[in-house]
Amino acid sequence: MPEDLRTVEWTGSALRLLDQTALPDRVAYLDAGTVDALVDAVRRLVVRGAPALGVAGAFGVALALREAGGDRAAFEAGAARVRAARPTAVNLAAGVDRVLPLAAEGEDAVVAAAQALLEEDVRGNRAIGAFGADWILARTGDRPVRVLTHCNAGALATAGWGTALGVVRELHARARVGMVYADETRPLLQGSRLTAWELQRAGVPFRVQADSAAAGTIMGGLVDVAVIGADRIAANGDTANKVGSLGVALACAAAGIPLVVAAPWSTVDLATPGGDGIPIELRAEEELLGPGVAPAGARAHNPAFDVTPARLVSALVTESGVLEVSAGTTPARAR
Amino acid sequence: MPEDLRTVEWTGSALRLLDQTALPDRVAYLDAGTVDALVDAVRRLVVRGAPALGVAGAFGVALALREAGGDRAAFEAGAARVRAARPTAVNLAAGVDRVLPLAAEGEDAVVAAAQALLEEDVRGNRAIGAFGADWILARTGDRPVRVLTHCNAGALATAGWGTALGVVRELHARARVGMVYADETRPLLQGSRLTAWELQRAGVPFRVQADSAAAGTIMGGLVDVAVIGADRIAANGDTANKVGSLGVALACAAAGIPLVVAAPWSTVDLATPGGDGIPIELRAEEELLGPGVAPAGARAHNPAFDVTPARLVSALVTESGVLEVSAGTTPARAR
Repeated sequence: MPEDLRTVEWTGSALRLLDQTALPDRVAYLDAGTVDALVDAVRRLVVRGAPALGVAGAFGVALALREAGGDRAAFEAGAARVRAARPTAVNLAAGVDRVLPLAAEGEDAVVAAAQALLEEDVRGNRAIGAFGADWILARTGDRPVRVLTHCNAGALATAGWGTALGVVRELHARARVGMVYADETRPLLQGSRLTAWELQRAGVPFRVQADSAAAGTIMGGLVDVAVIGADRIAANGDTANKVGSLGVALACAAAGIPLVVAAPWSTVDLATPGGDGIPIELRAEEELLGPGVAPAGARAHNPAFDVTPARLVSALVTESGVLEVSAGTTPARAR
Repeated sequence: MPEDLRTVEWTGSALRLLDQTALPDRVAYLDAGTVDALVDAVRRLVVRGAPALGVAGAFGVALALREAGGDRAAFEAGAARVRAARPTAVNLAAGVDRVLPLAAEGEDAVVAAAQALLEEDVRGNRAIGAFGADWILARTGDRPVRVLTHCNAGALATAGWGTALGVVRELHARARVGMVYADETRPLLQGSRLTAWELQRAGVPFRVQADSAAAGTIMGGLVDVAVIGADRIAANGDTANKVGSLGVALACAAAGIPLVVAAPWSTVDLATPGGDGIPIELRAEEELLGPGVAPAGARAHNPAFDVTPARLVSALVTESGVLEVSAGTTPARAR
């Protein structure tokens, strides 16, 4: 993403969010100046993506602090509401927890810590991109690399640059991208709306495809590697990410191509031993229903995430390097 | 489907099609009285589903015959256009070929043969339902069966009753259905629009889910079996069906649950040795794009089908019985 766009930015009095619900048709911003406004923006996915949620959570503590006006119980309740706005991404809670100890020093200290987290995220993403590109190119030889990605783990999901798309950006900077297949990512179309928008701005060749096309694209030999982000990674390497990631992972394993998970180390939750312990957010049934789409009265099953078992994760790329998880190098062992 | 609804019906002068593009909001019919109208209806998926296309193709020969008015070259060109309206489903061409030899005897003979094919399809579906239900129940014991299905292989995809949904209807008639998870089936939503509509009418409990949720539903232990239809089955058992079926099949194999393909024997194409020889229809990119969905200028990869290798097909259920394909009983061997 060009440097003129910011997913999350502190204005001095509010958290300015690039409104991802308006993309790809409009570039609009929403200033969240209260805890309520931020929690609503998080739930509506105005801001989304595990790393971006972490940064938003940290700034949310500053909003809670100002709003509480010295009332400690009110502050704690406000911070807790930010922390719990979405359940699956560990980064949201981690972002809140990271700056909480500074609350006693006042809003400026919290804002400075949140700003540091934001800058750290962008630096980390650059490192993820470089480590990921190196790992992939070591396996693909000289030909252009064809990549499949699911959902949006781009600049829009982070404070800038991106995790999975950070790897793609780095490959593109090295002139090594042949094609990116972007799963549209139902029901909210983060792939066709957001990833496609980012790739188009960056000049990366891409095709949008139905999520259901991913297995055929992978098994049919159209891609060399799949690169996805993560919302929470358990100690054993089991990885929660946008629903559909598991299907991509199964197809990669069947086709014998690597599945790369690109995420900051803050996405690793060592307190959760395995995927069974990761809460999976069930979102509103209405996201899948409506006139013209389903008969009136139909019900839906709408999990936002699924869990890819560690044995299917070829590489976990963080800002610290690459863990070959399926070969046994789990986060718990690497710590 | 209640008996008062007909997917395909000859009016005496035209082929009356239940317009599947209007569902689930409206039950509307389209009378195709010319080859052009029928080819257009087939391409727009007013009528769809391999067995229904077979019946429509057979009646299409009657339309071509009348339109040609005794001009043999014009008749052959018309029949060829019907035959080629969609490339993947072998049934369309087979339906045309079945009645072609009767063209010399005139329109009434062709119509009678097409009508016989229609009635044969419904009878065949009833047999598929019974064989499929028996096979599944032999493996699930006493508990209610939880089924996943993809796309629509129901009454709407056939002349009546359905193939995959025929199995579900039969299970429901035996009071053995616990839940059906219906993949919505992007981009044209045959699952949420058509399968959900059929299940609701039949009183079968169901949930619509995103296609990308299928792997998690299967790996998470929420279903006992997946049942899908087929558009063409090669001699070795490789099966082309709606894009996304391959992902369902991979997940079933990983979870250790059976994948059942339910289709009339006419879907088997013994002239095609394996899946590599099945042409896959690439549909218009616009089905996946548009304002609010993807940035202007984005391109899409839009295959309508994928091929599930025979090793992932636990059972192929036809009107003649069950072939355990992954165990080695391929259509070529069973012939």
